[in-house]
Amino acid sequence: MRADGREKNQLREVKIETGYVMHPEGSVLITVGNTKVICNASIEDRVPPFLRNSGKGWITAEYSMLPRATESRNIRESSKGKISGRTMEIQRLIGRALRAVVDLDAIGERTIWIDCDVIQADGGTRTASITGAFVAMAIALGKLQDSKKISRFPLKSYLAATSVGIIEEHGSVLDLNYIEDSKALVDMNIIMTGEGEFVELQGTGEEATFTMNQLHEMLELGQEGIQELFEMQKNALGEIAQRIQ
Amino acid sequence: MRADGREKNQLREVKIETGYVMHPEGSVLITVGNTKVICNASIEDRVPPFLRNSGKGWITAEYSMLPRATESRNIRESSKGKISGRTMEIQRLIGRALRAVVDLDAIGERTIWIDCDVIQADGGTRTASITGAFVAMAIALGKLQDSKKISRFPLKSYLAATSVGIIEEHGSVLDLNYIEDSKALVDMNIIMTGEGEFVELQGTGEEATFTMNQLHEMLELGQEGIQELFEMQKNALGEIAQRIQ
Amino acid sequence: MRADGREKNQLREVKIETGYVMHPEGSVLITVGNTKVICNASIEDRVPPFLRNSGKGWITAEYSMLPRATESRNIRESSKGKISGRTMEIQRLIGRALRAVVDLDAIGERTIWIDCDVIQADGGTRTASITGAFVAMAIALGKLQDSKKISRFPLKSYLAATSVGIIEEHGSVLDLNYIEDSKALVDMNIIMTGEGEFVELQGTGEEATFTMNQLHEMLELGQEGIQELFEMQKNALGEIAQRIQ
Amino acid sequence: MRADGREKNQLREVKIETGYVMHPEGSVLITVGNTKVICNASIEDRVPPFLRNSGKGWITAEYSMLPRATESRNIRESSKGKISGRTMEIQRLIGRALRAVVDLDAIGERTIWIDCDVIQADGGTRTASITGAFVAMAIALGKLQDSKKISRFPLKSYLAATSVGIIEEHGSVLDLNYIEDSKALVDMNIIMTGEGEFVELQGTGEEATFTMNQLHEMLELGQEGIQELFEMQKNALGEIAQRIQ
Amino acid sequence: MRADGREKNQLREVKIETGYVMHPEGSVLITVGNTKVICNASIEDRVPPFLRNSGKGWITAEYSMLPRATESRNIRESSKGKISGRTMEIQRLIGRALRAVVDLDAIGERTIWIDCDVIQADGGTRTASITGAFVAMAIALGKLQDSKKISRFPLKSYLAATSVGIIEEHGSVLDLNYIEDSKALVDMNIIMTGEGEFVELQGTGEEATFTMNQLHEMLELGQEGIQELFEMQKNALGEIAQRIQ
Amino acid sequence: MRADGREKNQLREVKIETGYVMHPEGSVLITVGNTKVICNASIEDRVPPFLRNSGKGWITAEYSMLPRATESRNIRESSKGKISGRTMEIQRLIGRALRAVVDLDAIGERTIWIDCDVIQADGGTRTASITGAFVAMAIALGKLQDSKKISRFPLKSYLAATSVGIIEEHGSVLDLNYIEDSKALVDMNIIMTGEGEFVELQGTGEEATFTMNQLHEMLELGQEGIQELFEMQKNALGEIAQRIQ
Repeated sequence: MRADGREKNQLREVKIETGYVMHPEGSVLITVGNTKVICNASIEDRVPPFLRNSGKGWITAEYSMLPRATESRNIRESSKGKISGRTMEIQRLIGRALRAVVDLDAIGERTIWIDCDVIQADGGTRTASITGAFVAMAIALGKLQDSKKISRFPLKSYLAATSVGIIEEHGSVLDLNYIEDSKALVDMNIIMTGEGEFVELQGTGEEATFTMNQLHEMLELGQEGIQELFEMQKNALGEIAQRIQ
Repeated sequence: MRADGREKNQLREVKIETGYVMHPEGSVLITVGNTKVICNASIEDRVPPFLRNSGKGWITAEYSMLPRATESRNIRESSKGKISGRTMEIQRLIGRALRAVVDLDAIGERTIWIDCDVIQADGGTRTASITGAFVAMAIALGKLQDSKKISRFPLKSYLAATSVGIIEEHGSVLDLNYIEDSKALVDMNIIMTGEGEFVELQGTGEEATFTMNQLHEMLELGQEGIQELFEMQKNALGEIAQRIQ
Repeated sequence: MRADGREKNQLREVKIETGYVMHPEGSVLITVGNTKVICNASIEDRVPPFLRNSGKGWITAEYSMLPRATESRNIRESSKGKISGRTMEIQRLIGRALRAVVDLDAIGERTIWIDCDVIQADGGTRTASITGAFVAMAIALGKLQDSKKISRFPLKSYLAATSVGIIEEHGSVLDLNYIEDSKALVDMNIIMTGEGEFVELQGTGEEATFTMNQLHEMLELGQEGIQELFEMQKNALGEIAQRIQ
Repeated sequence: MRADGREKNQLREVKIETGYVMHPEGSVLITVGNTKVICNASIEDRVPPFLRNSGKGWITAEYSMLPRATESRNIRESSKGKISGRTMEIQRLIGRALRAVVDLDAIGERTIWIDCDVIQADGGTRTASITGAFVAMAIALGKLQDSKKISRFPLKSYLAATSVGIIEEHGSVLDLNYIEDSKALVDMNIIMTGEGEFVELQGTGEEATFTMNQLHEMLELGQEGIQELFEMQKNALGEIAQRIQ
Repeated sequence: MRADGREKNQLREVKIETGYVMHPEGSVLITVGNTKVICNASIEDRVPPFLRNSGKGWITAEYSMLPRATESRNIRESSKGKISGRTMEIQRLIGRALRAVVDLDAIGERTIWIDCDVIQADGGTRTASITGAFVAMAIALGKLQDSKKISRFPLKSYLAATSVGIIEEHGSVLDLNYIEDSKALVDMNIIMTGEGEFVELQGTGEEATFTMNQLHEMLELGQEGIQELFEMQKNALGEIAQRIQ
Repeated sequence: MRADGREKNQLREVKIETGYVMHPEGSVLITVGNTKVICNASIEDRVPPFLRNSGKGWITAEYSMLPRATESRNIRESSKGKISGRTMEIQRLIGRALRAVVDLDAIGERTIWIDCDVIQADGGTRTASITGAFVAMAIALGKLQDSKKISRFPLKSYLAATSVGIIEEHGSVLDLNYIEDSKALVDMNIIMTGEGEFVELQGTGEEATFTMNQLHEMLELGQEGIQELFEMQKNALGEIAQRIQ
């Protein structure tokens, strides 16, 4: 049993609250254990220069943490005047993952801006961001379709993410919290579609390396966890869930 | 009667929720109508260079808005790589106001970091920030005293803020929401202590100017409104309220 | 009597020298005691994006100090690569104040750039900047009218500014120099029109707070001082003074 | 057969030239097909603040491309004044990978700076950088040991990297050049140790997703390719190869 | 005869006004025709890191133009957030030139900050800056010696600068104003010591090239002009002039 | 005889290798002793705003050093987020010099981007850059003419550069390496055309000054050295050499 009483293959408690903030087209507060992320989806009727006159849309993500989302206070990136490498990696990852399940032709020349703002952090903020952002985006696209601006619903599949890792005393475990993450030998983020295919796989062993067998163990835990997340997304989406092919 | 049904001298509905985020020493979600601000107070055992070895503490504030706190999405200041003049003005104002009611000798060589993050904006974000930040700071200072790190409670007085303004169809009104604010002829922010003295007064007439009589009308409305805010701060603070001299 | 021999309600010696620099459309050196500011007004035949095709003009101000305008040398903001919060606040204030007395429709799609460069500082640089910038702007607008590019003179009123404050040993005083300013309990900047109405009021008590009575005392001192400044502006403007309605 | 005549499991021609530039402690020009990267290793007798007085060393990497390393000219990141997200991701990856095979205690309080400068790009620049940087670092560490500044050789294992991917007409292929990379459905970077364990695995399907079977095919191709790279590293290292445990 | 009535070998009217601004240790307003530069010298009791504990001093210069020093308004470098290549070149040149005539050992571990702020520009701002800055620096060093902080006067020689150039209709000419400078085929800045030796020579022919004979003609004109500048510096310096060896 | 065995008037060994990198229109590796610079010329079918619709082209240069081109590692300018004054000076010099021998009308509305990247530095990097960049540019222009995009060959003359200086033990010497440069009393860069005229002359005596006689000695050495460089450029250019008028 893990420090917080979970089994190896057990997710933390997950809540997905929709309509959290009033202005965005889609707004979600996702809670995964003590990790809380506001995921807002905004629709802009413009695309970046490389897509102008292509008829295609775009999805881009930004990620940030409140300074005191963590145990000790971090300096704001706006005060530092630049975005850290870690932030850039995460926001590129979120955008790339979401684009994998969207039919960009079907949204027309529009940009979906995804803002993931972590208000409380306890590990797994990037995977919680992806899982929550999918729901916010689906809601925003639902409104777009309701307003007749697009005809076809552009989501090709569900999308969710979780982390797995190897910890000295427990071996492979699912959904690491901050304390587990900081002592993990190997850390892997898995992003999958509702069809059970991989969208992205990022496994890193800074303090250690991992074998093919360990890779399999981790992938299996991840797949199970992601199946549960799909159920929660469906519940949160209500009627819109039925539009996803 | 105003567009949202309020009287000229009526505040919007105010809620002050404490313990909103888990890590900070003091954490508050303040809601003023549709304006929502997370106010976190963090205590750091260091002071800026100009105060080292002075035995005195410092209070400094940062203010930010989530990109989609507003009707249309704003570019993040971290992406722009610099903080706007408006943000700077607001965070300097918040810090200055809070310092006016704190005995900086009594907190020792510590910095209280105040982070005001607007998650939903509908006018009056700077005054809501000050009113909420006071409560977050009081809670953080209460914990500091409970832990015996300081002996004397360092708050000399209550502190709250509101806005008043002049609107063509209604004359002077209290606590402007975004629509009122954007058509106001004159806009004034008032910050007062529990003793009814002014800490800061900022009145601006970009589209218009104002007379001495109008100034008086506005000051009166502001004083009334701030009295009500003190009551809500007291309720939110519970036991700590009694430590304020 | 104050340290420099002045009465409580006495301005420092003020000089407004026009035509100071050759290139700008309006150029003034204003001297207030030992504070000296070059105020240049430049006319550009373009407006910022938000005013294009509106038929309206714009006024924007920039403020800077030479590194050795002060007792000890300051690092240039161009070397630091960013503008301080204080500079931003001041330049926003100057621009806002000037816009209050200009009929922006009457200047057409033009921008008036106001540059206030402090070459010697002894307190009150922002209020001296506003008082001098008004004159530089009036001269520039006079030339614009002389050249038949505009028909109506766009200034609706005079505009001048001064500071007042509360000092322990003297109570309320007018036009604080640097030494008085640095020990003032309360500091207030007052900007008024020729009609005696307020354009902006900024009162701050960092070390102290102030009562309604003290506010009145300060406002009265400020009003008197500003009346004297209007006379000096009129003298400096000569023929152009008659065009102001 | 692929467009350039290679088999699915065939690397491009690889050359590792040591002593390429005279000043660095280790300097390598690695050529993988038309991709050419200068990999320099510099030893500095200091560590970042978080490691001071820890007795441990650090390895950090920087990556850059000459503006005309690519088909069309890119703007320099020094001219833009900031480093792109892609560059940050790559240099974090290189540093993390190298640290996985170095005994940081054995290098003492020193930093190994790895500079990977791409002078000609044709796909696979990040994996070529890692493979070349390993050799440059091994040479630098060899000199450090020869000079008696360290006793134990700090490399725990070999380290090399390659890319694999899925292309519509060929399925899984090894070591993608630029044209293959730009039309790949899935792209995966694999970094392994001489013991055949994974250090990092990054698989991305922006245009497509991938199944467990496809993952296995790609991993197998990658493992084969990396074995060949280890042989070339050994040849390039000469005597130093024997010091690696 | 030139457009402004001067002979080929004639300087514009030069004035050197000392004590222009009150705070700096040395302050000069130099006027060369319509070019006006405030040159301030500030003494700081610190040296840059590379000189600490060397017993030697340093001289560094900064150069800037007011936005409306020129015919059309320039954007401030502080607003752009970076210093242009032209400004960097000029301030490096001023610092280097001044250091050539100062005995850095004799000033002890102090930095002389030279600020050259152009308030009105009509060509030759960099050479006017050097000529004026020399006087400001000499005054500041005179005060330093008067206060007994240094024993020996640290100036080894006079230093002045002027420009020469080749213009189509006049051939070689001395001290180009802005209109001459903008149509010059060749432009050369000459900096010399009181002993008639060169400190710096920068000749550029962007639109044309120049022969050895033309070089000689220009050098002769420059030498003559600089002799006259030395006389004006001597007059401006008064008693301090005698301390220069 | 100098430390490296050269006579006073002897260049270091020079090699000019063309076609060094595959993508640029012109690519050269120039080696001058131990100094090695990659000079790439790229042609872009656009000009900067100030030349649009003028029918004229432009030439602009960028200069950089790999971090470990020098004895000790330098921080990348992209990491610092800004370009140093030294880099700016050098790239402005390279661009200006090349423009002096190009008929900008003959290249049409195109920009020639010159990238000089120093991979190994031992003094004289800016003059080596100019000498090498001339060859890269000539090759790029040759291709442009071969492709019939321009009719006339736009090079009006050869262009090469070298350094001369005064060293205590040897007097005037040609082509200083790093050690000589760092102890030189006077340092001068000379850029000349194939016709023997000066394009730019930059002589600096930071630690010393120089007389007219010394200037002549240095100019003579420089002229001789540059004649030799023209021969090497001709050899490197092959057939294209004949197109230069």
